[in-house]
Amino acid sequence: MLPRTYEDQNCAIARALEVVGERWTLLIVRDAMLGIRRFDDFQTRLGVSRAVLSNRLAQLVEHGVLERLRYQAHPDRFEYLLTDRGQALWPALAALAEWGGAPPAPEPPRWFRHAGCRSSVHTEVLCPDCGQPLAPGDVVTGRTPGAQISRSAHLAPAVQQQLARERGLLDPVRS
Amino acid sequence: MLPRTYEDQNCAIARALEVVGERWTLLIVRDAMLGIRRFDDFQTRLGVSRAVLSNRLAQLVEHGVLERLRYQAHPDRFEYLLTDRGQALWPALAALAEWGGAPPAPEPPRWFRHAGCRSSVHTEVLCPDCGQPLAPGDVVTGRTPGAQISRSAHLAPAVQQQLARERGLLDPVRS
Repeated sequence: MLPRTYEDQNCAIARALEVVGERWTLLIVRDAMLGIRRFDDFQTRLGVSRAVLSNRLAQLVEHGVLERLRYQAHPDRFEYLLTDRGQALWPALAALAEWGGAPPAPEPPRWFRHAGCRSSVHTEVLCPDCGQPLAPGDVVTGRTPGAQISRSAHLAPAVQQQLARERGLLDPVRS
Repeated sequence: MLPRTYEDQNCAIARALEVVGERWTLLIVRDAMLGIRRFDDFQTRLGVSRAVLSNRLAQLVEHGVLERLRYQAHPDRFEYLLTDRGQALWPALAALAEWGGAPPAPEPPRWFRHAGCRSSVHTEVLCPDCGQPLAPGDVVTGRTPGAQISRSAHLAPAVQQQLARERGLLDPVRS
C-alpha cells in the first residue's frame, strides 16, 4: 500500500507536499492568488466535485494556507482568503508556472509580467547576502543538528496557534 | 469522479503538475538532485513499493525530466539522471523546501547554504530586467493571444523530440 502521507520523509519538501501536494490544492492556491474567494467560483474554475473541493479547502484552512471568513450573515456565507503562509507560496507557484510554460511545452496560456517594466516574471534561487543566483552546484547541504523528525500531524496545531495570534491583525466577520 | 489529470486546466502550473504532481515524483526529483541515480537507492530512501517507483520513474523519463542510461551491460543495469528539464525544477524545489521549512513548521532537518558565503538559500520571484523582487501585487497577468489549450498527452512527444535532439550532446551507454 502506498502510504497516504510522506510522514516518514524528514524533509522540508515533503512537509510542503503534505500540505499542498494533494491533487487540486495548488490550483486552489493559484486561483486564490488570482483573486478567487468563493466556493462556487473555485468550483466553476476547477470543475471538481463539491465534495473534493470542500475537502481540499478544509485541508488548506486546517494548515493555515487559507482563512475561512464569514462575509455575510443570515444566511451565513463564507469566503476563503490566503493567509500570509498562503501568500508565501508565491515563489513556488511562480517557479512551477515558469517550468510548466517553458519549451518544449507549448506557449503558456497566461503571461505574468512585472507591472512596472512589463518584463516576464522569473524565479531564481539566490544567496540573500551576496545576491548571486545559485545553481544546485553552488549549494552545500547537510543535516540540521538536533532537528526533530516531525510528523505532519504535529504541524496543524502549530499553524492554528500562529493563526490565532495573527487573527487580531485581521478583521474577520467572525462569530 | 475526480479526473485523473488536469488536462482541462489550461494553465502552466497545471501542466507542471501533470508531470510532477503525482505522489512521490517531486521527491524522486529531489533525490536525483542530491545525487541518487539507482533504482534501489531511490527505493531505500523513499520507502515506496517497487511498482510505484517503477511507474513514477517511467513517467519522469517519458516527460523528459529524467534520462535512463545503461551504465553496465551483461547484466544490463540502468541509472536515472536529471535532464536539463529536470535540473530546471531546482527553483520550484528550493521554493517548496523554503516554504515547508518556514515557521510555524519546525526547524527543517536539512539546511541549504551558498557554498561561497554560507548564507541560507532563498528563492525569489524577480524581474529579470530591472532586478526588482516581485510580490503578486507587482505582477500583471493576461491571456496569451492565440495560445492553444494543450492536453497533457501532447506534451510527451514534444519532450521526446527535444531529448532526441539533445542526446547527441550526452554520452549515454545506450544500445
